[in-house]
Amino acid sequence: MSNFMQYAIQLAQMVDGQTGVNPPVGSVVVNDGRIVGIGAHLKQGDKHAEVQALDMAQEKAKGGTIYISLEPCTHYGSTPPCVNKIIEFGLSKVIYAVKDTTLPSEGDKILQDAGIEVEYQPSDEAAMLYKDFFKAKESKIPEITLKVSTSLDGKQATDNGQSQWITNKYVKQDVYQLRHSHDAVLTGNGTVDADNPQYTTRIQDGKHPIRIVLSKSGDIDFSKQMFQDNFSDIWIYTENQSLSSPSEHIKIINLTECKLANILADIYDRGVGKLLVEAGPRVTSEFLQTNYVNQLIIYYAPIIIGGSGQYQFYQTDEVIDLNEATQFEIISTELIHQNIKMTLRKK
Amino acid sequence: MSNFMQYAIQLAQMVDGQTGVNPPVGSVVVNDGRIVGIGAHLKQGDKHAEVQALDMAQEKAKGGTIYISLEPCTHYGSTPPCVNKIIEFGLSKVIYAVKDTTLPSEGDKILQDAGIEVEYQPSDEAAMLYKDFFKAKESKIPEITLKVSTSLDGKQATDNGQSQWITNKYVKQDVYQLRHSHDAVLTGNGTVDADNPQYTTRIQDGKHPIRIVLSKSGDIDFSKQMFQDNFSDIWIYTENQSLSSPSEHIKIINLTECKLANILADIYDRGVGKLLVEAGPRVTSEFLQTNYVNQLIIYYAPIIIGGSGQYQFYQTDEVIDLNEATQFEIISTELIHQNIKMTLRKK
Repeated sequence: MSNFMQYAIQLAQMVDGQTGVNPPVGSVVVNDGRIVGIGAHLKQGDKHAEVQALDMAQEKAKGGTIYISLEPCTHYGSTPPCVNKIIEFGLSKVIYAVKDTTLPSEGDKILQDAGIEVEYQPSDEAAMLYKDFFKAKESKIPEITLKVSTSLDGKQATDNGQSQWITNKYVKQDVYQLRHSHDAVLTGNGTVDADNPQYTTRIQDGKHPIRIVLSKSGDIDFSKQMFQDNFSDIWIYTENQSLSSPSEHIKIINLTECKLANILADIYDRGVGKLLVEAGPRVTSEFLQTNYVNQLIIYYAPIIIGGSGQYQFYQTDEVIDLNEATQFEIISTELIHQNIKMTLRKK
Repeated sequence: MSNFMQYAIQLAQMVDGQTGVNPPVGSVVVNDGRIVGIGAHLKQGDKHAEVQALDMAQEKAKGGTIYISLEPCTHYGSTPPCVNKIIEFGLSKVIYAVKDTTLPSEGDKILQDAGIEVEYQPSDEAAMLYKDFFKAKESKIPEITLKVSTSLDGKQATDNGQSQWITNKYVKQDVYQLRHSHDAVLTGNGTVDADNPQYTTRIQDGKHPIRIVLSKSGDIDFSKQMFQDNFSDIWIYTENQSLSSPSEHIKIINLTECKLANILADIYDRGVGKLLVEAGPRVTSEFLQTNYVNQLIIYYAPIIIGGSGQYQFYQTDEVIDLNEATQFEIISTELIHQNIKMTLRKK
């Protein structure tokens, strides 16, 4: 693979988490051995990556090659089809890394009929970027990252519920980045009560995620600090029909049945493409028993907590046969100042 | 450091090697937690990175923050000062990673006087990107990477001069990338005679470097394949006043004295900012005895060649005291399919 495709993929990665239910896409236009335009899809509803790059290149695009992390679109959405723009600018070649399986695309043919060479140059890295996006678009459920901070023996707190500062401040920084790169963060009301968290992004110029709280009963303590700030909207999912919002940025969403399938479908419907789950053992375990989790990130602190394990991060009511225990693949491990970050996907 | 600065630096790295004697610069404009513009300096004489990013952002830049890998310029060169453009677009903050030591800059003050907050956010990675550029600009000598392919025992060929395929085809791919990211490649005429090389870039959409041949005597065999193709210009440095060019793309450059200092100054003067040296033991050793080499890249093949060492890559006429032997710092090592790439800098 040439570096130009790598650059297009890097551009896509830069905007990952700011495109809502649209895919993050990057594009580079090359002519006569040099880059003449770069682009990325910056926000749902905005210009596509190809259009940004071509607008930068202007007449220098003519006869050049455009590299795109994802196949160019052929449909009229909120913007006209990218293939039209590519034809109009007189490119001689289009190279893309991933085919968009969610669209009945005839892009290759349209481009070839216009005399433009088309090359599909598959990339594992780009495929990984869109795999969860395609799944999310088809299932209409957000891409989900589940984050756990735990001791070596799998506990989020002591039996008494003491949990502050298990992992270190460098892990906190890493989590801020995770929050920035997801549209929303989800937790249970039990964690709000116990830990009084804010779920904000304390990185420079970072984006605060929408904060989603699950509370079937609707027994909310609105004096908690999360409800006092208005860094970003808060959505509360509840079955309690009489719960009312004390503030404009807090939205009460009533569902007849507060089960994950319904909640997640509703969240996607409201424009959340990427969801981070940061919760206590109950909600964490509930997610881990479903097929919704695309990525599991565990931060291990080098301590052992012991006790009876009231706050083990994974607990189930039923005994699961060892052969049926969920298996993961380790995608990466990283040492963060004496804490370990492990990124996993279900096998 | 926030990821936005990292992105600006990545953008700069993408255009490294295509900006001639100008610096490679990247820029990202952020507003309300999201990227609204991205840019890079694509070519000497073209718009600067900040201008590209602001032109993409348009009115969305207002009140936002611009991240730039290098301090914005305050002077009229081939384009107007970037600080003016930043003020005009109503940014509220400027963050840059490297101060431009080659310019008597008052950019911080100009911006601050216009009510814009300025933050210098140093980055080792960005500093590394410009360190050699600053040195080159001050000395008016190109940034130089010297590349060596060798056996474990430090030889580029057997005593008989057999040298083909010491390192493997994956190393070749890596070298193509090196050629792409340098404006020119330099060798001695002895290597042209012995190996009949082309010094082209065989990567998709890659840029062929200008090819520079040193031949004090001017005893050139123009039937060699390098002189037959016209993938890129060839410059021949010689003291031979009667040597004439057989073809338009071959330029004969006569110097009264063909020593490195003169040759390199002339090369820089003609617009070459980054130079790759790929030569035999004579030219390689000549460069290694100077202070011109910024980066040394050695590819080791896992073989031992022995013999008397006619083609050891480093040979000097004089015996150097061990205490005065040149010391390097290892920047990185990489395994390339059973060959080792080692990147070094002088200590």
